[in-house]
Amino acid sequence: MSTSKTKDKYQIAVVPGDGIGQEVMKATIDVLDSLDIDFEYVYGEAGDECLEKNGTALPDETLDIIRQSDACLFGAAGETAADVIVKIRQEMKMFANLRPVKAYPHTNSLSDEIDFMIVRENTEGMYIADEEKYTDEGAIARRIITREAERRIIDYAFKYAVENNKSKVTAVHKANVLKKTDGLFKEIFYEVAEDYPDIATEDFYVDATAMYLITQPESFEVIVTTNLFGDILSDEGAGLVGGLGLIPSANIGLDGALFEPVHGSAPDIAGKGIANPIAMMLSAVMMLRYLGENDAADKFDAAILKLLNDANTLTGDLGGNASTMDVAGEVIKNING
Amino acid sequence: MSTSKTKDKYQIAVVPGDGIGQEVMKATIDVLDSLDIDFEYVYGEAGDECLEKNGTALPDETLDIIRQSDACLFGAAGETAADVIVKIRQEMKMFANLRPVKAYPHTNSLSDEIDFMIVRENTEGMYIADEEKYTDEGAIARRIITREAERRIIDYAFKYAVENNKSKVTAVHKANVLKKTDGLFKEIFYEVAEDYPDIATEDFYVDATAMYLITQPESFEVIVTTNLFGDILSDEGAGLVGGLGLIPSANIGLDGALFEPVHGSAPDIAGKGIANPIAMMLSAVMMLRYLGENDAADKFDAAILKLLNDANTLTGDLGGNASTMDVAGEVIKNING
Ligand SMILES: CC(C)[C@H](C(=O)O)[C@@H](O)C(=O)O
Ligand SMILES: CC(C)[C@H](C(=O)O)[C@@H](O)C(=O)O
Repeated sequence: MSTSKTKDKYQIAVVPGDGIGQEVMKATIDVLDSLDIDFEYVYGEAGDECLEKNGTALPDETLDIIRQSDACLFGAAGETAADVIVKIRQEMKMFANLRPVKAYPHTNSLSDEIDFMIVRENTEGMYIADEEKYTDEGAIARRIITREAERRIIDYAFKYAVENNKSKVTAVHKANVLKKTDGLFKEIFYEVAEDYPDIATEDFYVDATAMYLITQPESFEVIVTTNLFGDILSDEGAGLVGGLGLIPSANIGLDGALFEPVHGSAPDIAGKGIANPIAMMLSAVMMLRYLGENDAADKFDAAILKLLNDANTLTGDLGGNASTMDVAGEVIKNING
Repeated sequence: MSTSKTKDKYQIAVVPGDGIGQEVMKATIDVLDSLDIDFEYVYGEAGDECLEKNGTALPDETLDIIRQSDACLFGAAGETAADVIVKIRQEMKMFANLRPVKAYPHTNSLSDEIDFMIVRENTEGMYIADEEKYTDEGAIARRIITREAERRIIDYAFKYAVENNKSKVTAVHKANVLKKTDGLFKEIFYEVAEDYPDIATEDFYVDATAMYLITQPESFEVIVTTNLFGDILSDEGAGLVGGLGLIPSANIGLDGALFEPVHGSAPDIAGKGIANPIAMMLSAVMMLRYLGENDAADKFDAAILKLLNDANTLTGDLGGNASTMDVAGEVIKNING
């Protein structure tokens, strides 16, 4: 996942999108600007407002901007989220969706010890939306599991474990019912595992995992799973650590990467300047690591952690009354000081 | 869901199955025998041991016994669980899977206020296992959503709400991605809702629901959803209230009904006589209500609640050291006064 620093200047595609996407993006860019790195931002439109304005929720220009940049920061999309983000992931072949679930201080986390990574397959499974058939009396969706895509994501999960000193990878599936699709997934998991003899393995059914995440969240280190199960379990993971305000994510492919908070556009609080920007900021930290800017990533990360520890500049969702930009200011202060 | 008492004698199909299924069934039958109702038990085999002995995990005789009985009590099956229980549900057209999630005293529940019912569609969705195609390079599973089955389960959920003084039904789906299958589900939900103007409605994405179950579990009353989402969310529900030891379930159809704990055969503790029989007992309480034996159901239920309140005859999973049969003895004592 991390490359070593190769460039003096990075082109970053910035797609703030709808609702609080705009606000948390602005706060995050302010912090990035306070780091000693040369970023050139190229802004792209996407989402509900873009649809209204341009007749499409994801203009080709936006895709081109993402394609031509070193990385993309994405805020949030509203009703059109599925059309925007799923399409970007698939078009750009961003096959790995990384979703860290980590307990931070002064949050409603179920346990202080929670710290695991969900590695979600990001291109197939139930997300092949155009493969459905439909009559008025019923509809069919196809769940597609290929050896190629699943081997790639499983291998990615093991590599992630090795690079991040994790000792175990857990595969999550429903192979007792989905004997062929998830049977294949499970088979590939144990095939790939042979290449990583130092990493322990286990596999659970998705329903059991949904329970274990609550009853033994500390036992997980790296979870690898198919697309929709990863979607469900990562939101459950957000619940475990007090909500979506703190869950960043990375969408990584061979030709590009996109970093976005797991939360949505939150129309109920949009425009008030009170959204928690930390999930977006942590997404930017993931981007810095992806770019090989590890020193800057460490600094930014530590500044966020200090803010959470100090607990005097928290947004409403974390029990404080700071504004989005207050958080940005405090993080910048922590970075500089 | 509940009929009024119509019979002087009931024929009950009893399928203990594998592992702790045997033990929790025995404890439950002991309690049923202490009630003033005439039950005739007809035992059937199913599960891993049955497969080894008879070459099939679900003999036709067992299906016949279930078909001919007023209701079935089912313990647990091991590795063959999917082949056994999914087949029974589909063969017997048991379309409604009811899974109450309720906080009991002296358990590891996240909140004392948790009390909701998951109404899971039980016949279609991703559970149409024989509809898959397969090559060495990939596999396809079909998710089938029909108007008929979804209308039936949604109507059931609303009826349940009315009969049990619930004020709201929540539909759970992934209609942003599964636009056709879950789009249809959502459409039908709001169509059916029109017949129940006194019941409030809401609908959430399954990923968001997985989070809300942790962050606002008290807000749910009745959840209605498709087969696999119901499977995942009900195990998550078990985690919310301290584990699977207390989650019963009912599989209800037009021609029969089966009552089973949500937990499995638990090979790690099987044969030791220490399994928690309460999920099986609560399943028997659901059976009594289904048979219209509401007085007996109330008594049995109250006796279990007293045991949990007294907290001196709890099995290991609840922090005690009582045996399975100790629990049966205490519940019978409580019933007798
Ligand atoms: C918006 C939606 C299509 C998306 C998904 O299901 O992947 C979101 O829930 C996510 O997790 O990024
Ligand atoms: C054993 C398995 C097939 C079953 C299911 O997936 O329905 C179980 O998990 C359940 O919830 O009853």
